[in-house]
Formats: sequence, structure tokens, C-alpha cells
Amino acid sequence: MQALTFDVFGTLVDWRGGIARAASRIGAAHGITQDWHAFADAWRAQYQPNLERVRSGALAWTPLDALNRSALDALLPRFGLAASSEAERQELTLAWHRLDPWPDVLPGLARLKRRFILAPLSNGNVRLIVDMAKRAGLPWDVILGAELARAYKPDQAVYRKAAALLDLAPAEIMMVAAHYYDLAAAAGCGFRTCYVRRPQEFGPQGKCDLPQEYALDLVVDDLEALAGKLSC
Amino acid sequence: MQALTFDVFGTLVDWRGGIARAASRIGAAHGITQDWHAFADAWRAQYQPNLERVRSGALAWTPLDALNRSALDALLPRFGLAASSEAERQELTLAWHRLDPWPDVLPGLARLKRRFILAPLSNGNVRLIVDMAKRAGLPWDVILGAELARAYKPDQAVYRKAAALLDLAPAEIMMVAAHYYDLAAAAGCGFRTCYVRRPQEFGPQGKCDLPQEYALDLVVDDLEALAGKLSC
Repeated sequence: MQALTFDVFGTLVDWRGGIARAASRIGAAHGITQDWHAFADAWRAQYQPNLERVRSGALAWTPLDALNRSALDALLPRFGLAASSEAERQELTLAWHRLDPWPDVLPGLARLKRRFILAPLSNGNVRLIVDMAKRAGLPWDVILGAELARAYKPDQAVYRKAAALLDLAPAEIMMVAAHYYDLAAAAGCGFRTCYVRRPQEFGPQGKCDLPQEYALDLVVDDLEALAGKLSC
Repeated sequence: MQALTFDVFGTLVDWRGGIARAASRIGAAHGITQDWHAFADAWRAQYQPNLERVRSGALAWTPLDALNRSALDALLPRFGLAASSEAERQELTLAWHRLDPWPDVLPGLARLKRRFILAPLSNGNVRLIVDMAKRAGLPWDVILGAELARAYKPDQAVYRKAAALLDLAPAEIMMVAAHYYDLAAAAGCGFRTCYVRRPQEFGPQGKCDLPQEYALDLVVDDLEALAGKLSC
């Protein structure tokens, strides 16, 4: 095995906490008190339906920033923020670029980087992932992902493009994700797979989507555990 | 300005010394003494003609590793290495992944990285650039280049793809290169430009290709000087 590719939202970074924090700042500027975690959940709930419009061909290729922005515009009135300015809407959209990693991520990636090529393989557009990495210190060797294939996971084109750019057979790459559908698609392309349990992704009442029966190479609680299993 | 994109071969790394060093090892294994810098020059002389076959459409998109390999196979008999094994040919082709940076490159990039997004914009394929960066410690934020556009510089598609993936207007990006044709093409796409003098690229008798009259934003002797000019 020569490379590890990582899902990002939920697997590496806490989108729910980061979006709630950004929204609470905008809310405070408007004198509005809300359950901003519910706002984050509502925004996130538009994610898969929006990606599906691209995957189905109903919508031409559109980067995630633009999908997030149109979902935001539709969402703001429900949370009392219909009067948000253009600058505030841009700031909220860019909040997806400024999410914090889970505590194990930086030490885990530092260990894994010694032995493997590390790459994000996210539905986030390249610039989003670059901004996030530069702010948080994520030590990527190369940025891979949906935008390079102009398709969204779990479309197999995304995984295949990553393997082609790495010039590796799929079996030389391990996909690491907290979402079973992502790993099932990667396995379908011949990738090895590692499930990371992130029960907090959707909040305190959240749970993992790992089915009772599964065919995965590894299941771990965090990236330090993954580094240990891979002898890094 | 938000990002700097860099030509790699010659601008950042010493391909001539690195290729000569790798070839001398193979030569020694065969008991052959040669001017291995002449071997490097001869291999490099096939570079533009091979790229031109892709640029002209005579050859379908082919990554640089494959172009380098076919040029190598044609070249080895001239240098007494017709009997080279498959493993030796692969090792020589991969020597392009293991080139050393000029002495100013790592300290210069470290300073520039504090203020700008840094990306290679090379004709080298993604894996080549990843391997080189991992070995030499080049601190890229994102790997851009020919393979993402499936076109070779100075085809404007390469620069345009880079700007699109960075989600930046071309004027927010500065192309840094030791070759005038590269900067002229980048400027034609609206990029800012910085010429780096690398008179040693083609050996002790080499010289820069900067014309007497030019329209460039900056001309510097090395990346530390560039960092100084950009107040990094």
C-alpha cells in the first residue's frame, strides 16, 4: 500500500461545530438567538440532495462552494437571517473552508505521512480543501477529489481519477472515511478501506452508519489508531 | 495577489545534475564511462519535441513519465547502455522524481508559504511532482500542472485550469519560471510573472533565455530574492 485517501467533512473535520460557530456570529450581529447546531444540520441536510442533482445529470458540474451558497440562500429566512448581507453570505459559505480537525487528526496524519502519500478525496472543491489545510495545518502531499473528476462521490469516476493521478493500482490505495457509502464505492473500484468511527459528527445523539455486516479492511476509532494498525 | 505557481524543472530543481548522477550509477554497473551530463542534455533535448507531439495533437495525451521513458529507450544505445535492464530503465525514468532543489528553494518557499498559496505548475505528471516534493520537502499547498488539464505548457489550457482550480482571477496569481516562453504564455492568460535567473540549468556554459526587451512583473536571481520583493 502506498497512499491513503481521506474523506474530509465529518471524517477529519467537525463541520457541525464550525458551521454553528460561524452562524452564531452572524446571528449575534443581527440580534438573533437560534439553535445554530440545528442551522448547521439543516444546511448539511441539503448536501446530498444537491450533489444528487449533479450526479443525476439534472445539474451541470458545479463546485461545492456554489452548491453550498445556493442552499444557504434558501435556508437563511427559516432562521431569521433573510436580511443577511452579501458579505455575510460569503462569510458563511467560506466557513466550510475554516473547519477544525478532530483532535487526533494532526498527530495521526503526521505519523501516517512518514510512510504513505496522503491525499484528501473529498467532495469539497480544491480551493476549499486548500484553504482548510493551510489554516489547520493538514499535511497533504496532493489534493485529490471530486473537482478533478468533475463528479461527486460516490460516483466511481472520483476514485478512479485519484488512482490515475497517483499512478497507482486501486489496491495500493486505502480510502479512509466515516461514511459507509463512501467506502463501499471505493471498494467497488478496488481500493482498500478503513472506516473511522465519528459518532459525534451529527451531534451528541449521532451514531455511526457502519452496518452490522460489512466487508472493510479496517475499522478504527481515530487516525492515531489507524497509524498504529499500519505500523506508523 | 494570493497564489504563486512555479515551473519546476530548471526553475526549482537541478534536472541536469540529478539525471547525470543517476545515469552514472547505471553506467558504473555496466563498466561504462561517459559524459553523463551530455546524456542528461541529450535526454532533455527530446523533451520539447515530445511535448510538441501532444500539443500538436499528433499524440494523444500521455503523461511525462511515459514520454521520458520512450525517449530514454531511444537514447540508451547512443551511450553504450543498450543492454540496460527493465529495472534500470525504470530507475532512470524515476530519477526525474528524485531531483534536488537549488539551495535557495526550500528557504525561499518557506518564507513565501506564509503569505501565499504555493503550487507547482509543471509539465511533470502529478505523481512525479508528489514524489519529488515528498523526498525534497517542497511545501506545496496543492499540486497543479499539465496532467490536470491534459495539455502541456505553454498551452493556455494549463494556466487556465490552474486558475479555475484555485478559484482565483489570473491577476491574483504569479507564475514563477526560469523560462521566458512559460511566462509569456502565463502573461497571455492574465497571470503576473516572475523570471528567475538559473544560468546553471544547462550547465556551466548555459545562459538565461531572458530577452533584451520583455514585459514581466519581476526578475530575480533566486526565491529568497523573490520572498524579499514580496515582503515575505
